[in-house]
Amino acid sequence: MSADDRFDELLRRLGVIDDLVRAGTLLGWDEETKMPVAGAEARAEQRATVEAVTHEHRVDPVLGELLEALRPFEESHDPESFEASVIRVARRDYEKAVRVPPELRAALERAGSLGYRAWLRARAENDFAVMLPHFRRNLELRREYVACFSPQGDHYDVVLDDYEPGTTTAEVETIFARIKACLVPMIRAVTEHEPIDDSCLRGSFPRPAQHRVSMAILEAWGMDDTTWRLDYTVHPFEVSMAPGDIRLTTRFDEDNIHGIFSCLHEFGHGLYERQIDPRFARTPLADGVSSAFHESQSRMWENLVGRRTSTWRFFYPALQRELPAFADVPLDTFVRALNKVAPTLRRVDADEVTYCLHVILRFELERDLLDGRLDVRDLPEAFDAKMREYLGLQPPDLANGVLQDVHWSDMSIGYFPTYALGNVVSVQLWERAEADLGDLDESFERGEFSDLAEWLREHVHRHGRTYEPRDLLRRTVGTGMDPEAYLAYLQRELQELFGSAVA
Amino acid sequence: MSADDRFDELLRRLGVIDDLVRAGTLLGWDEETKMPVAGAEARAEQRATVEAVTHEHRVDPVLGELLEALRPFEESHDPESFEASVIRVARRDYEKAVRVPPELRAALERAGSLGYRAWLRARAENDFAVMLPHFRRNLELRREYVACFSPQGDHYDVVLDDYEPGTTTAEVETIFARIKACLVPMIRAVTEHEPIDDSCLRGSFPRPAQHRVSMAILEAWGMDDTTWRLDYTVHPFEVSMAPGDIRLTTRFDEDNIHGIFSCLHEFGHGLYERQIDPRFARTPLADGVSSAFHESQSRMWENLVGRRTSTWRFFYPALQRELPAFADVPLDTFVRALNKVAPTLRRVDADEVTYCLHVILRFELERDLLDGRLDVRDLPEAFDAKMREYLGLQPPDLANGVLQDVHWSDMSIGYFPTYALGNVVSVQLWERAEADLGDLDESFERGEFSDLAEWLREHVHRHGRTYEPRDLLRRTVGTGMDPEAYLAYLQRELQELFGSAVA
Repeated sequence: MSADDRFDELLRRLGVIDDLVRAGTLLGWDEETKMPVAGAEARAEQRATVEAVTHEHRVDPVLGELLEALRPFEESHDPESFEASVIRVARRDYEKAVRVPPELRAALERAGSLGYRAWLRARAENDFAVMLPHFRRNLELRREYVACFSPQGDHYDVVLDDYEPGTTTAEVETIFARIKACLVPMIRAVTEHEPIDDSCLRGSFPRPAQHRVSMAILEAWGMDDTTWRLDYTVHPFEVSMAPGDIRLTTRFDEDNIHGIFSCLHEFGHGLYERQIDPRFARTPLADGVSSAFHESQSRMWENLVGRRTSTWRFFYPALQRELPAFADVPLDTFVRALNKVAPTLRRVDADEVTYCLHVILRFELERDLLDGRLDVRDLPEAFDAKMREYLGLQPPDLANGVLQDVHWSDMSIGYFPTYALGNVVSVQLWERAEADLGDLDESFERGEFSDLAEWLREHVHRHGRTYEPRDLLRRTVGTGMDPEAYLAYLQRELQELFGSAVA
Repeated sequence: MSADDRFDELLRRLGVIDDLVRAGTLLGWDEETKMPVAGAEARAEQRATVEAVTHEHRVDPVLGELLEALRPFEESHDPESFEASVIRVARRDYEKAVRVPPELRAALERAGSLGYRAWLRARAENDFAVMLPHFRRNLELRREYVACFSPQGDHYDVVLDDYEPGTTTAEVETIFARIKACLVPMIRAVTEHEPIDDSCLRGSFPRPAQHRVSMAILEAWGMDDTTWRLDYTVHPFEVSMAPGDIRLTTRFDEDNIHGIFSCLHEFGHGLYERQIDPRFARTPLADGVSSAFHESQSRMWENLVGRRTSTWRFFYPALQRELPAFADVPLDTFVRALNKVAPTLRRVDADEVTYCLHVILRFELERDLLDGRLDVRDLPEAFDAKMREYLGLQPPDLANGVLQDVHWSDMSIGYFPTYALGNVVSVQLWERAEADLGDLDESFERGEFSDLAEWLREHVHRHGRTYEPRDLLRRTVGTGMDPEAYLAYLQRELQELFGSAVA
């Protein structure tokens, strides 16, 4: 077989894997948006089978041999070329996949599924004891998973690498220490201040009107119905079936407008996948480079663009037309309410300032769990202690405390920090975009958002997984992950909300 | 491995195959109902991959060995038992699947896909020459397919068996000869008669109102939203993802109410899959026993129930409320219009009486094509000649003539006859149900349809593929396929519409 034939065969095999992954994606999307409830049991089997079959293709030894045989071909190409990048990234995926024996994968999946059901029950009964044996079992399996990679340094590096390739735990700790040092006193100052009046955001907001407002914004941002969908679900998410098939989901409640902001958040994820180089389709390059980068996009469109005065100068009249509850609310009052800062019990309700502390406390706890410094039995107490220390709040029950997130139900450790890193990256990218494009507020006020979307395509999206996250950030903003821009941004936010009192 | 372990392993493997089939089903359903158009290219790849991976599992030699090793286990069970039936049907599927080399399957799929695109173009340009090479290539491959089964008798038996297991071409010919002998003169008499006035079925019928009427009927028939869905598409169809996840599709046009009857038709298919024994889930028993049986169910609910005076006595007031165009149309006029008999150019528009002739002429032509008695070059002329002879109509162009159906675009021969056989079976089952249940009109008038649905569950649906179609029919109605009941039914229909003039 010639090297070109081998490369074609590699693309064919990677295409099959991608097709199977997307088939699994559709089974999941449909389950959350369309499936009649009585289809649930069969759907669980279908998803498990497609996942297992996909995995068999991922770890096929023939794929490994092909990647090995393609080393000279790879070296004969520019490392940034499509050919070299596909081989490099596919080899990285293959080498990680074969490390984990199929029995351990199956055990993780089974225990995760049992853990999820126990989590639902433990919340409903407010009884941590229900969850305890599942936490123990899942943590044990997670440690076995880590051991598959024979880590020389920090064990947490292994789980972090699944979401944030190449970033070390030590780097995250440095960034988080800096953020915490700034935020804890900032938030204390906020709580001593007169609270922001966000009463205008509570009321009666018909769902169809919220839908129309969301679509008006999303369409102005570039969504169109030849390529995108918006559907309803319980927990909003975004998936893509292909660069030409991007699916957002949201949930509209009648008594608040969170659902509109879910749309804006998921749009950020969707735009990333929409703008990846179409040539990468059906290869492992056709994905976001890391969870933090993906999250940076959703938080940029939800917060940096979506809660901005200039943006609402353009969209507020449409909102007022559709939702008469806002007819007599001045724009400034509305935007202040959108940007309210106040400690909350639940991570998903948190504002831009307090959000990172929710994440940091989870990161600290899951580090300690993995390393055995914290026993799962003592987790509720440790969680509450940090909530009191960082946010000045005591959770009244488990569902609003340690059991609020689904992520730990199967001990999916390593994901939480990427939420906060996403905030950090979002402001780094934003500042660079503003430096390149000039003042964006002027265009936003006119309803023009394509300059930003194009900038993101050019500098971030189109590259997919071609570069390591670290290299992509350095190419784009010139430095590594650095929280200073983000902290300065929060400082300005608070200044604007409260005047000099908090600064 | 013990026999019980082997049987468990067989069920596991059959479960995987079923899961993959359903994953493919969902990719298809989504493509036709939800997918943004720009997702089409990727979707074609995804479907082809899932199909290929499913096929690999279907022909896995380990499956063949397992089925062989299970012979004593099978023989130790009652042939009607779950265990013996699963093994028997799985072996039948396996033995058919391994007959066809993967290269031929791939060639059929490729040529079929090219044929489909050519068919669209040939219709648009009204140019048979566009289609000719594709017809030739697909017919050649279809003959190779037939040869894989080394047929001793009629080659058409092989393709027929894919849809109507165990039924021979000779049987079909006998049935069709009898139907044709009755219908051709019947239709001549109809055309000499004053046409039925169906002008009330043309007008302005808002889609949301048609949707509400359809849902009212379907819910009275047993549809509920925990288990069923109704979505919009271009060409209506039904699929099931599981016995608890049944999906109907329809298309509502503003200027007619065909879409309501599409719902009723697809409901018949859906009810079949809904009422298969839940224990059969994830095995090859969980499917309709044959295409004719499946079609008998859709045509029973669409025609025998759905165009019946007693049924509309109950639903007509709701229809009149939702669609004011019917406010002044008497019930009798409406039902007569629904049952209008008149030759049409297009099979899908045909009434109950003329429908079978559309099918019979296609059956005769595809027999001749397969056997080489008719060259594809001469197909348009042969098609038009039969249209003139059987229905007295001359197609004005290809899209309303020989290229009206998609089925020949890839030379999918063998399916057409099952449409007419479905009509035959539907009336055989109906008469047996009436004999068992007594006069159904009385309950229909009161909006009660569950007796019929339950009868169908008990005698047909729950058995899935446990019996051969022939045996199931004999168990249920006591005879083989027999067109007399169907022909007598049509005779009564005409009598009612035209009085004695046609009888």
